[in-house]
Amino acid sequence: MFIHKAKIKQKHQCYDQPAIEFLKIRKFYNNSYLGSMEKLQYTSNLLKYIPFLYVIWSDDLFSPSEISVFTKALEGDELKSEEENQIKRWIDPDNPPSDQTMLKWKQLIDHSDIPLIESDSYPLSLFSVRWANKDQAVDQVDPHLKFIEINLGIQPNHYHHLFEVQKDTSHTASFYKAAEIDNLLKSTHKEAIDPLRKLISKPSFKWEVRPTKEEQRDWVRRQLKELADAGYGAMAFEPEYGGTGNMPAYGSIFDNLMFVDGSLTIKFGVQFGLFGGSIANLGTKFHHDKYLKAAGNAELLGCFAMTETRHGSNVRGVKTTATYVKESDSIVIHTPSENDNKIYIGNALDATMATVFAQLIVEGTNHGVHAILVPLRDKDGTLLEGIRVKDNGYKLGLNGVDNGKIWFHNVVVPRENLLNKFGSIDQQGKYHSDIENPNKRFFTMLGTLVGGRICVGKGALSGAKKALAIAVKYALNRRQFNSDKKIQEDLIMDYPTHQLRLIKPIAKSYVYHFVLEKLITQYANSDTSNRREIETQAAALKSTITWFANNCIQECREACGGQGYMSENKLSSIKGDVDIFTTFEGDNTVLIQLAAKGILTNFKTEFNSDHYRDILKYLGTQLSDRLTTFNPIFTNKTDKDHLYDSEFHVNALEYKRRRLTFSVASRIQNYTKKGIPSYQAFLKVQTHLVELGKAYSEELSYKAFLDFTKTIQSNDLKFLFGKLGTLFALSEIHDNAAWYLEQGYISGTKSKAIRNRVERLCSELRPHVNTLVDGFGIPNSCITTPITPV
Amino acid sequence: MFIHKAKIKQKHQCYDQPAIEFLKIRKFYNNSYLGSMEKLQYTSNLLKYIPFLYVIWSDDLFSPSEISVFTKALEGDELKSEEENQIKRWIDPDNPPSDQTMLKWKQLIDHSDIPLIESDSYPLSLFSVRWANKDQAVDQVDPHLKFIEINLGIQPNHYHHLFEVQKDTSHTASFYKAAEIDNLLKSTHKEAIDPLRKLISKPSFKWEVRPTKEEQRDWVRRQLKELADAGYGAMAFEPEYGGTGNMPAYGSIFDNLMFVDGSLTIKFGVQFGLFGGSIANLGTKFHHDKYLKAAGNAELLGCFAMTETRHGSNVRGVKTTATYVKESDSIVIHTPSENDNKIYIGNALDATMATVFAQLIVEGTNHGVHAILVPLRDKDGTLLEGIRVKDNGYKLGLNGVDNGKIWFHNVVVPRENLLNKFGSIDQQGKYHSDIENPNKRFFTMLGTLVGGRICVGKGALSGAKKALAIAVKYALNRRQFNSDKKIQEDLIMDYPTHQLRLIKPIAKSYVYHFVLEKLITQYANSDTSNRREIETQAAALKSTITWFANNCIQECREACGGQGYMSENKLSSIKGDVDIFTTFEGDNTVLIQLAAKGILTNFKTEFNSDHYRDILKYLGTQLSDRLTTFNPIFTNKTDKDHLYDSEFHVNALEYKRRRLTFSVASRIQNYTKKGIPSYQAFLKVQTHLVELGKAYSEELSYKAFLDFTKTIQSNDLKFLFGKLGTLFALSEIHDNAAWYLEQGYISGTKSKAIRNRVERLCSELRPHVNTLVDGFGIPNSCITTPITPV
Repeated sequence: MFIHKAKIKQKHQCYDQPAIEFLKIRKFYNNSYLGSMEKLQYTSNLLKYIPFLYVIWSDDLFSPSEISVFTKALEGDELKSEEENQIKRWIDPDNPPSDQTMLKWKQLIDHSDIPLIESDSYPLSLFSVRWANKDQAVDQVDPHLKFIEINLGIQPNHYHHLFEVQKDTSHTASFYKAAEIDNLLKSTHKEAIDPLRKLISKPSFKWEVRPTKEEQRDWVRRQLKELADAGYGAMAFEPEYGGTGNMPAYGSIFDNLMFVDGSLTIKFGVQFGLFGGSIANLGTKFHHDKYLKAAGNAELLGCFAMTETRHGSNVRGVKTTATYVKESDSIVIHTPSENDNKIYIGNALDATMATVFAQLIVEGTNHGVHAILVPLRDKDGTLLEGIRVKDNGYKLGLNGVDNGKIWFHNVVVPRENLLNKFGSIDQQGKYHSDIENPNKRFFTMLGTLVGGRICVGKGALSGAKKALAIAVKYALNRRQFNSDKKIQEDLIMDYPTHQLRLIKPIAKSYVYHFVLEKLITQYANSDTSNRREIETQAAALKSTITWFANNCIQECREACGGQGYMSENKLSSIKGDVDIFTTFEGDNTVLIQLAAKGILTNFKTEFNSDHYRDILKYLGTQLSDRLTTFNPIFTNKTDKDHLYDSEFHVNALEYKRRRLTFSVASRIQNYTKKGIPSYQAFLKVQTHLVELGKAYSEELSYKAFLDFTKTIQSNDLKFLFGKLGTLFALSEIHDNAAWYLEQGYISGTKSKAIRNRVERLCSELRPHVNTLVDGFGIPNSCITTPITPV
Repeated sequence: MFIHKAKIKQKHQCYDQPAIEFLKIRKFYNNSYLGSMEKLQYTSNLLKYIPFLYVIWSDDLFSPSEISVFTKALEGDELKSEEENQIKRWIDPDNPPSDQTMLKWKQLIDHSDIPLIESDSYPLSLFSVRWANKDQAVDQVDPHLKFIEINLGIQPNHYHHLFEVQKDTSHTASFYKAAEIDNLLKSTHKEAIDPLRKLISKPSFKWEVRPTKEEQRDWVRRQLKELADAGYGAMAFEPEYGGTGNMPAYGSIFDNLMFVDGSLTIKFGVQFGLFGGSIANLGTKFHHDKYLKAAGNAELLGCFAMTETRHGSNVRGVKTTATYVKESDSIVIHTPSENDNKIYIGNALDATMATVFAQLIVEGTNHGVHAILVPLRDKDGTLLEGIRVKDNGYKLGLNGVDNGKIWFHNVVVPRENLLNKFGSIDQQGKYHSDIENPNKRFFTMLGTLVGGRICVGKGALSGAKKALAIAVKYALNRRQFNSDKKIQEDLIMDYPTHQLRLIKPIAKSYVYHFVLEKLITQYANSDTSNRREIETQAAALKSTITWFANNCIQECREACGGQGYMSENKLSSIKGDVDIFTTFEGDNTVLIQLAAKGILTNFKTEFNSDHYRDILKYLGTQLSDRLTTFNPIFTNKTDKDHLYDSEFHVNALEYKRRRLTFSVASRIQNYTKKGIPSYQAFLKVQTHLVELGKAYSEELSYKAFLDFTKTIQSNDLKFLFGKLGTLFALSEIHDNAAWYLEQGYISGTKSKAIRNRVERLCSELRPHVNTLVDGFGIPNSCITTPITPV
């Protein structure tokens, strides 16, 4: 019963030639169950392929492209034709080896005395050759086996559980160098980042649990000054004001600070990015000369006072007034009622000055929201007359940032304090702006702040990276459970659920890193021609990436179990700090709809515009977009080559964005044709718009990553990054499988195949997981915790 | 061009009888655009249906069951046959009213002088009749219109945006009474819950931001004592020890405490549920008499010392030893090495005694894990010899609970301190247990602690309810953005994205409430016959519901924007506290796999068993489960009646669980046939097992809710709960649409129809959202915050 019919046949047909070498497996004789197999014999040429066949068939992984890998390997090998034919029969997907054959193979392997050495470069190839040539000492990698091992991505963690042989395991591979990966991530900012990382490794930047907000604020204040003294604060300003004019490098400094602490990062961003940035971008030379240097070295601490209690997302509706009084040639700042105060204003308890956003009224006419510099405190830190500040108190996170509420009671500032790049009051008391349309003027002002939005995305991503590094290092040390036969419990990193949990977000982190890097560079070099597109991209990516970061950090917390909950292990502070990134610098749900509106108009209308008629004008152009119908061969294609093909990924991601654009445009048109007001029509498609914004982000991210991957010099790293990209793309398609299935873009079978590939890719990346998190370049001091001895 | 051809035809065909009353719409004459419509006239019988037709066609909502509602309404009405025919033409889905017709209707409505009064019981019906009979004062609801309004679930928020008429809006309806809903939730525990809610409304239970753990612990300690004094601690114990023996009522007390504070709830659970419960369930009369009363009134504070640094999920592997020494008739408790300490032990800094889980060694034989009472401190609170305790320090949440690490150095306790219900040492120093198999004994001991797991689910759910109440009340006050024409900005509760965000989890909270209530009652009355099934259900629901609660609380935090981030608004503390519920009392990922194993064996093997061979035995029985093939009519059925039919929901949820059971059983069998060890085979299907556990939970929850709904006396409430159940079920199917589509269970069209229905149901429940969160019965003081003036 045990010997399969096919096997008997084969024995007669293939092994009747005396020249074939026979290998005797002595141990078999002792196994009564296998008694009937006494005469079963394989050549060493056949044997060496058997561990591969066992591993592959255990995973049910034989797709046409995998068969072709195997076939190609065989072609190069000097096999006897009957050996080759036998192997080809074994890789026939229509007639896979029987369970009995598989059992026999496993027992042959289990009873060998050959150890499996995972630290070998090609462990399965070496194991297989040694095993097939037991009597000789072999240390040469067989090129044919190696070819299979590489091209099918077979990793020790795919089979070390399968074989009950002696194992010399390693937790992690050292094939790739983390420093090389880090260099790719640092891009052109190595010169700025490397010294910063040294600085933040100093004891003055050591993170500790500090329960009260006062303790945290003290630390952050000191650290901020140290960074300013080292020149990091002014970095984005022009050289005459102490900087390098390098906004993208500033962005990298900002996101590297997240490795230390969220509060420090945000305080840094408020002081230099928002307050300093408002002077640089909304002010003119007068303001630059007077304030920028002091802002950059943190001698002049400032606030960015935009949000009000009743107006967060809808900034254009702020109630604070800035009334020009001709008689005194001054501007009066006033909070009209108790609930029109500024709120959540960072630096409110420390700052001596604020950039206040208010309705500018000149000669009785409201010219819309403008920014005015308003002194808050005197040299001694005493609040000036008419100004009231209240601490916002404790928050879910970022307690090192002094957020507060501010009220103004008829506070008088000179006319010159108006940041007048886009709108000014002349000496005659007349208002003037080059941008006549008040909406356009307002959105142009907001647009200069897009850099902040990109930085928020970068900061959130750094939080995710830090959490991933801690969770991965914990998972490479933490053991729990085991099989009956083992003494040592398993590393939790070897659980498939754990791999999905951590390796998918690692791939996403890499992809998002490069799209943000690309965007901030484009932003720094942008002109009016691509400004709207960049604003749209910043809004879409800020939302998508901050949402991702929060989910990722939560997974990391849970992946560390109870330890993840202890403050000393840093995950809880990352979580609390990054949480608000989904809200500030634009609420995600609002921003992603703005992005969708940008997409609907092909970036032709003013970003932020809520003039729906402007948008309606462009909808028609979206409806002419013709989408190809699906070929059943395509929707059913589950071959590895196809699923790993970036053309397929791009097609899928593009298709989703285009299809959603088309359908949302049609829906809005259909509503408005029935007389439904455009504002209401947009409300009706709100969830649809959110989907469109997300789809756009993922397409944008993947394409940017793909472009970057093409520029990598090292083939090894290109291969690794290719896998990360594939995992990203397939995860996206998998996460949106319902939509793709609804559209008929993929079949059920293909959807399942994609799910399997996602799991498989995670396991293929498993050996490199430590290198991948080290590749983030996080200073050791920042990720050293009681559970992650670095 | 404006007058549609069909309209002209109809004028000639239908209105040639002099008897028909004509309604003249004066304002039309003034509108040049509508000049050509001068002669267009409708009867009042036709007119009264037009607002309905406009609303329904705006939403593209005409499914066959909706048409049948309309047709039925027409049948009862006394219409002229040509009127009836005209309306029937207007509801023909194959020939919907043209855009021009829709436009005309809208303009007719917009130009009326009739106000829309949302506080009317049937606002659209009344509006329509008043409008159609302009010259008469009508205040009677037309029964035919009312029939449509009710049966199609048309709510003011579906149309008040559509009509530009004067509106008398209300934010929320008062049709249902929150107190009646709360009574359903309180079930049989009204007597226990009502006085507790009074107690926790007292100032001594007032929640405030308390930054340091010391402050929080002081408060919690005092509140715990107050609860104990009022008799709540002993509630689950038998009357002779001060209780009522009512475990389900205890569970309700536990979950109501979450409305006050997470730390208080957990401290309460540690003291009375875990420590007290361990004495009650693992000890015998000797222990009950000696300790239970003092434990119940909090005079004897205790710990439950199970988890160790290196053994969390794998409790059976704990390293602490309890060695019986015959000479002294005592047990020596010892921590073998520095990292084998107990960790995260609640009450560790306050307690005078601990229930310690350790390997019991008698005469050199290890009898597995047992629980032993070990005194920790003397009367003055000084630690006893050999005991070392270290504060676990700050945590992400629950800082009012004093979690600590404990080490034992050869601590001697008398033999009688062994909690000996399931295993004892007699006077001769011989070990004895009625349960011979040590595994079975261990799992029996763990099984008595299932109540804690159910309580954790209940507690997490209360956290979600509290967060929902705060977020909903904020959304009913917060305005942001508006259309060009309106002065007042919109309530954020009226945004579709906001409705999906908050109303879906409200429905889920109701469903989960009742399944937990059912489970805790079954648990309290369980015997060995259903014990394993209850353990499986507790594990599955604990995981599913604590995951749900965390997601829900996060949505609520984001839904409140920056305010959600401020500690004073309570959401941040709920979030930090509930976070760890996914980990403690069993890590969710581990628990849900245990549940899946229970399902695979039809609850026949020992719960918690990691003897995979036991499980393999039962797999075969799962493979005989025959699943029906799908009828294309079913997979494509998108009619409302079908989609709202609980039989469809049950079928879908059942199908998923059965299909996953079948496929996971097959996969495991296929692996093991190839010789893959069973431990590894289960690893390979790990993600599949997690899916199965989730599917099982949702099926279980929905069925329990459905059963409950059938028992509701009030038809109104039955209708409301029916909607909640439908929303739950359709959301589940929608959230798992990829899977259902892959299986071919639903078509793409049906999947889209389900998505639309989910959005529609949220909007139908929108008017009742305040009542629904009030129905949770949370004391006002617990949800009063600066952003939710109650």
